[in-house]
Amino acid sequence: MIKVGIVGGTGYTGVELLRFLVNHPQVQIQAVTSRAEAGTSVADIFPNLRGYVDLAFTDPAQENLHECDVVFFATPNGTAMQTTPQLLAAGVKVIDLSADFRIKDIAVWEKWYGMTHACPDLVAEAVYGLPEMNRTAIAKARLIACPGCYPTAVQLGLLPLLRADVIESTPLIADAKSGVSGAGRKAAVPVLMGEAGESFKAYNVAGHRHLPEIVQGLNQVAQQPVNFTFVPHLVPMIRGIHATLYATLKQDNVDLQQLLATHYQNEPFVDVLPARAHPETRNVRGTNMCQLAIHRPQNGSTIVILSVIDNLVKGAAGQAIQNMNIMCELPEAMGLKQVALLP
Amino acid sequence: MIKVGIVGGTGYTGVELLRFLVNHPQVQIQAVTSRAEAGTSVADIFPNLRGYVDLAFTDPAQENLHECDVVFFATPNGTAMQTTPQLLAAGVKVIDLSADFRIKDIAVWEKWYGMTHACPDLVAEAVYGLPEMNRTAIAKARLIACPGCYPTAVQLGLLPLLRADVIESTPLIADAKSGVSGAGRKAAVPVLMGEAGESFKAYNVAGHRHLPEIVQGLNQVAQQPVNFTFVPHLVPMIRGIHATLYATLKQDNVDLQQLLATHYQNEPFVDVLPARAHPETRNVRGTNMCQLAIHRPQNGSTIVILSVIDNLVKGAAGQAIQNMNIMCELPEAMGLKQVALLP
Amino acid sequence: MIKVGIVGGTGYTGVELLRFLVNHPQVQIQAVTSRAEAGTSVADIFPNLRGYVDLAFTDPAQENLHECDVVFFATPNGTAMQTTPQLLAAGVKVIDLSADFRIKDIAVWEKWYGMTHACPDLVAEAVYGLPEMNRTAIAKARLIACPGCYPTAVQLGLLPLLRADVIESTPLIADAKSGVSGAGRKAAVPVLMGEAGESFKAYNVAGHRHLPEIVQGLNQVAQQPVNFTFVPHLVPMIRGIHATLYATLKQDNVDLQQLLATHYQNEPFVDVLPARAHPETRNVRGTNMCQLAIHRPQNGSTIVILSVIDNLVKGAAGQAIQNMNIMCELPEAMGLKQVALLP
Amino acid sequence: MIKVGIVGGTGYTGVELLRFLVNHPQVQIQAVTSRAEAGTSVADIFPNLRGYVDLAFTDPAQENLHECDVVFFATPNGTAMQTTPQLLAAGVKVIDLSADFRIKDIAVWEKWYGMTHACPDLVAEAVYGLPEMNRTAIAKARLIACPGCYPTAVQLGLLPLLRADVIESTPLIADAKSGVSGAGRKAAVPVLMGEAGESFKAYNVAGHRHLPEIVQGLNQVAQQPVNFTFVPHLVPMIRGIHATLYATLKQDNVDLQQLLATHYQNEPFVDVLPARAHPETRNVRGTNMCQLAIHRPQNGSTIVILSVIDNLVKGAAGQAIQNMNIMCELPEAMGLKQVALLP
Repeated sequence: MIKVGIVGGTGYTGVELLRFLVNHPQVQIQAVTSRAEAGTSVADIFPNLRGYVDLAFTDPAQENLHECDVVFFATPNGTAMQTTPQLLAAGVKVIDLSADFRIKDIAVWEKWYGMTHACPDLVAEAVYGLPEMNRTAIAKARLIACPGCYPTAVQLGLLPLLRADVIESTPLIADAKSGVSGAGRKAAVPVLMGEAGESFKAYNVAGHRHLPEIVQGLNQVAQQPVNFTFVPHLVPMIRGIHATLYATLKQDNVDLQQLLATHYQNEPFVDVLPARAHPETRNVRGTNMCQLAIHRPQNGSTIVILSVIDNLVKGAAGQAIQNMNIMCELPEAMGLKQVALLP
Repeated sequence: MIKVGIVGGTGYTGVELLRFLVNHPQVQIQAVTSRAEAGTSVADIFPNLRGYVDLAFTDPAQENLHECDVVFFATPNGTAMQTTPQLLAAGVKVIDLSADFRIKDIAVWEKWYGMTHACPDLVAEAVYGLPEMNRTAIAKARLIACPGCYPTAVQLGLLPLLRADVIESTPLIADAKSGVSGAGRKAAVPVLMGEAGESFKAYNVAGHRHLPEIVQGLNQVAQQPVNFTFVPHLVPMIRGIHATLYATLKQDNVDLQQLLATHYQNEPFVDVLPARAHPETRNVRGTNMCQLAIHRPQNGSTIVILSVIDNLVKGAAGQAIQNMNIMCELPEAMGLKQVALLP
Repeated sequence: MIKVGIVGGTGYTGVELLRFLVNHPQVQIQAVTSRAEAGTSVADIFPNLRGYVDLAFTDPAQENLHECDVVFFATPNGTAMQTTPQLLAAGVKVIDLSADFRIKDIAVWEKWYGMTHACPDLVAEAVYGLPEMNRTAIAKARLIACPGCYPTAVQLGLLPLLRADVIESTPLIADAKSGVSGAGRKAAVPVLMGEAGESFKAYNVAGHRHLPEIVQGLNQVAQQPVNFTFVPHLVPMIRGIHATLYATLKQDNVDLQQLLATHYQNEPFVDVLPARAHPETRNVRGTNMCQLAIHRPQNGSTIVILSVIDNLVKGAAGQAIQNMNIMCELPEAMGLKQVALLP
Repeated sequence: MIKVGIVGGTGYTGVELLRFLVNHPQVQIQAVTSRAEAGTSVADIFPNLRGYVDLAFTDPAQENLHECDVVFFATPNGTAMQTTPQLLAAGVKVIDLSADFRIKDIAVWEKWYGMTHACPDLVAEAVYGLPEMNRTAIAKARLIACPGCYPTAVQLGLLPLLRADVIESTPLIADAKSGVSGAGRKAAVPVLMGEAGESFKAYNVAGHRHLPEIVQGLNQVAQQPVNFTFVPHLVPMIRGIHATLYATLKQDNVDLQQLLATHYQNEPFVDVLPARAHPETRNVRGTNMCQLAIHRPQNGSTIVILSVIDNLVKGAAGQAIQNMNIMCELPEAMGLKQVALLP
């Protein structure tokens, strides 16, 4: 059994980690920490876990996380980097769901996240936890930077096409839409139901923190700087990301459907839909799946890729557990075989 | 392995049966029928089942359901009663999710459902599939009438109190609220999102088909005719029933919390919350749980019981599988251990 | 032209007051105050008012509200009572949308609102602003305590029946459901869309602040203490209250439909629907109307009244303006003739 | 007073026409027809109109629409073209909210709408009712083809930039999102709340009927064939369209904010927001406004225009009335001064 600790368990990624881990056959949850809720029963905050979790939240300062095999950070940005060095030194594997280790260029990270990085050397070591790109490196890693939710949906759609060199690197556009749970479980006026319900808007068009993360991934595969535009939107629903991706075709005689299907044919969590399909976010709600579809409207030069994930699962907690399975030499899909709730 | 057939697989209870059964360790799905969709892949209609179900819908007239061990009817009212006699004769266990076998008084049934019953003699034999009331009879039954969704939520809240004789039999009130999936997956103007969204209403106040079913259950336990008022409402959400139940206390010195908690202490799917709790429908979304809470506001004579279920699970497909497990001598919770999706 | 000031303009009742007042032919808005947003353009916070309101929020401490004819308080409880005495002394009419002047028994108010009242003598003078009950007194008043949203929906349904003495005073039950805007526009976890969306729950069953307010009104008309149970619920929608009211019929030979229709026949903002109707909250969304329907299911002794309002309009801003019109001898419906947005 | 008839009054554009027209000071509603609901009171189908409309629906075959000054067609495609010739011959002005007269190329129309046009000669005469483009022609017209909802949102955003020749004509992308009311009020599984709620998807990526309509408008202003990609999406909300438009900048030294603001400075129903703004669909809910914002992320070559309208108002009924006002020499905004409902 793998002894697991969760730091910062009161947010939506925390409860999602718990939802999957309580039914994971090789995991034993040692501790769930929360500074604010120390002493409170986990099931009091999350009544869906009644009967599944008997633990109370503990104070991270008091908790001996060094005894865990794996520690997940489901914390705000800037927290994981404070204690990760000690955990690694103690031989603990660290899987960070926050942004602390995602961006290799420290200056870029510090600009977008507005703080000084506490352990820049570990950033170089950290493996970007997108298994479909980095499975081998993940298997050997002791520190995983889990991708952001938007970057997961966008990169899974664009990377195979860039790698196959069938699309131009400019212009690339990601028109992305997310449910409100992407903003987390902290009190904030813009995601009150009275504000976000029954309305639709773009936000952060001038620049969203996931932009440099996506650009880093696209540039690496394109082997040149791409011209990428990213517009995130808020959807009046709780879960789900739908990325609509636009690119210009480089060559005319390529079977895009075949290319994508072949690329992902052995992936447990990427499902390329048949031609002419339109994935819906609910198809993957509560699951670790990404569904993709590719279109070439009017047989023109602009192609459209549709990519859906559950932002809290493949975009966060599920992908983190997928990484854990790979790192711990368990079957990659262990504990992640959920059928989406439909309707 | 239990060979299972599902008749009428294109509705919401059909897809829910499939969601649970594909991960049930002792079940093999033999056939899923649909007259309208015969030949279509199940996963084309329900893309959440891609990778889990390889079957296509088949025409019920062509399908040899006699080879199944258990057949579920997820059909409109009036269908199951047509073929149940032949299936029983062939030794198949039948679990009907429709209303065909719920009401013992044939005249009452025929009045509320507007048709002549095809096999009234089987109604007498059918066991009402509420395990918390009828577990022993279910274990021996070959024909189960699964309770309606409202009747499940209402009876689980009221029956222990009537049985313990701590509440008056008049007046009993159930103010019940359901998500729109209770109306099924057929095209109808009142449950269009443009009609049911962002609004709340009562419906069928003059009389709902679940009224005689609930009254039958309450009368039986109260051993006298109760005075019961039932007002269903439509909630702008997809899943969930919340029943708010009102009764008059018969005696003053009773510990209601203790009574309810003790009554259900060994039940795998009824969870009595601590005093002062308010169950939310999302706590049980996608699961077979019923959460209950009991209140006595201002220490007065009117008590309030709050009961939540997922109408498609404990109110339909999950309860049907719970019945199957009992009938087939499997652990009662097998295949039903899902953690609710929160948020 | 009536010179109007609004104190506390950044909440939902504030923006609703503005939505109606900008099109009111006899009103000129002098000032909209907000301590937190002083200096910010009103239309920056509420972009629906672009082109209709050119004002910026001002600091209430700096604002000369004494020059207004009417001042509305759209503030948290405890604020209006601080400055109302000075405004009245300066000859300003005050219409308070908060709870400061609603409850005549100061001890009861202080218990439920957890503070000491700043001007108990004015509580005696204040007129409870339910025009359908108190129109004459409102016309002469200088201080109006606008009813709460739940109390408006509940009392409009029950008072005519109590007054006509056709229902028992015990037990009376109000099972009430409100959209999330009832909780206001302040950041709070329980009304995040991720928390309140796609779920339904009761809350404050042990006691809600609107309970003593309703009981005060019912007792007064019943001329005896009623036995009243109030259970509020949160609906996953933005606007609207639906109160489902239960009472026991006192006499058998009464035409309830006729009684209610006659009682309200001259009211501009109460609409008694035909027999067997089910009002929906959307029928009155954005308007000052209350729609009522009355049922006697199975011709039994329990009667059911359905009452819907828009909590922000007839339950707050609209009713406040209706009071203003009466106080200022304007046509009662002036500026309040909106057709509900459907769908 | 202008005598108005509405053909096909039971859909969402019908009830919206009524919502505005009942408060329009210069309009008298003569008839509202519906074949299916002839004889039914309008207020029975639309209870928001109780007290505002006393009419019953009438059979269009029986109704003498020739006596109207203006007839609105709020009918499915293919209906208006059947009777428009007779109405025009009788001197009636016709405003068609359907697609019958929108596309000048009859062959294109017949391909996309799958029927033979009944009066192709009138197509040439019909004026495309986008006042911001065609105000002068509208004033003289007797037949108006009201633009589709998506075409309104997309063209208002792109046309000024094409006209000013500051963007390339290729590639142009419109990633558009609509609430479910765009699908109308007819029973259909995909817009059941159980299907469309809590989910997000693209649809008709291969080709939507609004594509040729938009291309016709863009080509005309660009004076060359544009390369335009259009991807519509379904948002889990009732009202509103948000179009996110992408184009490549042609020249670097242009003040886009200024260009757009100046272009629309005298328009009553187009509101260019300040730089860096993000319009929300709720800002214009229930109103005839279009709000626009323009961005140039990272100062790159791809520009982003955000355009929001209420699909049922500026995208249908409101724009139709705006056309009527222009045709009848009334103030263009008469009867259309509504403040959006927020929240």
